[in-house]
Amino acid sequence: MGEIYSMKEALIFSQRVAQLSKALWKVIENDIQRWIKPFNLNINEYHILWISYYLNGSSISEIAELGVMHVSTAFNFSKKLEERGLLQFLKREDDKRNTYTQLTDKGKEIIISLLESYQREDNDLVSASLPLRNLYGKFPELLELKAIIRNINGEKFMDTHEQIFQHLEKDFIEEKVK
Amino acid sequence: MGEIYSMKEALIFSQRVAQLSKALWKVIENDIQRWIKPFNLNINEYHILWISYYLNGSSISEIAELGVMHVSTAFNFSKKLEERGLLQFLKREDDKRNTYTQLTDKGKEIIISLLESYQREDNDLVSASLPLRNLYGKFPELLELKAIIRNINGEKFMDTHEQIFQHLEKDFIEEKVK
Repeated sequence: MGEIYSMKEALIFSQRVAQLSKALWKVIENDIQRWIKPFNLNINEYHILWISYYLNGSSISEIAELGVMHVSTAFNFSKKLEERGLLQFLKREDDKRNTYTQLTDKGKEIIISLLESYQREDNDLVSASLPLRNLYGKFPELLELKAIIRNINGEKFMDTHEQIFQHLEKDFIEEKVK
Repeated sequence: MGEIYSMKEALIFSQRVAQLSKALWKVIENDIQRWIKPFNLNINEYHILWISYYLNGSSISEIAELGVMHVSTAFNFSKKLEERGLLQFLKREDDKRNTYTQLTDKGKEIIISLLESYQREDNDLVSASLPLRNLYGKFPELLELKAIIRNINGEKFMDTHEQIFQHLEKDFIEEKVK
């Protein structure tokens, strides 16, 4: 299976995707930074709060895996969030060796305020995807990209994120953000 | 045009793409870092060398634009490459105020060695895309993603990268990398 493609084909493909990926991540990073700036959070902190909000009790290694960050990054920024009273470290009742994290009420409020402050017009990714939205009748699903990430990060990674989006779909009250 | 989609739809779409994008960039970053490690380069330096190799004389702002990096990042890492004798800063004959950069012979050799050392088996993105390659008969084109990036970074960005890939297509001698 690995022999049917040439080295050149692989090299050009990987360079092409690298260029698209860097450009995509840069615009997303800018969009998120603009969004979270009033809350005095960086992207890692925002990502940890976001995952913790939806998972409701997760270990540092789960946060690292879902947030695609190093365990040490997840740990250090979780500690910073703890210092700000947004996150707490707890021990499992049944297994005291295992620590997990949970959002405090203040942490939950920050996520709700974030959602309330979301402005679709202030999102370059959304604006740039509108022509496809108009063409398809919905935002593009990027299924090829999804298939690639599924192969790399695994089914559990995809499923958990899908659950988070379904939570978001249900919880999100349109009026809130008007 | 901006009114036909809901805030929720935009938010879920942008979160979904953010998660895919972060995972994709992480795997590409790791692939590139593994590839360039023996050459003692970081990703920005590699990217500057790569662009300069194919453009053959570019300004710092062109490098920044094509490499999706800050102008100061492009400048600082170009200076480091100059110190290592891989890149030189030159003045335009016709306009002495304009500086441009060009690879030295040593800089060109490093790009050729990089290409020669490329191992498709050592690339997680390529491995993860093989099932699509087998299905389509070619690597996926990620056309939706491409359309989004075209809307954000513009036609010139896409065209110049396309030219680079066409150069690569022509120059690349398959035997070299065996």
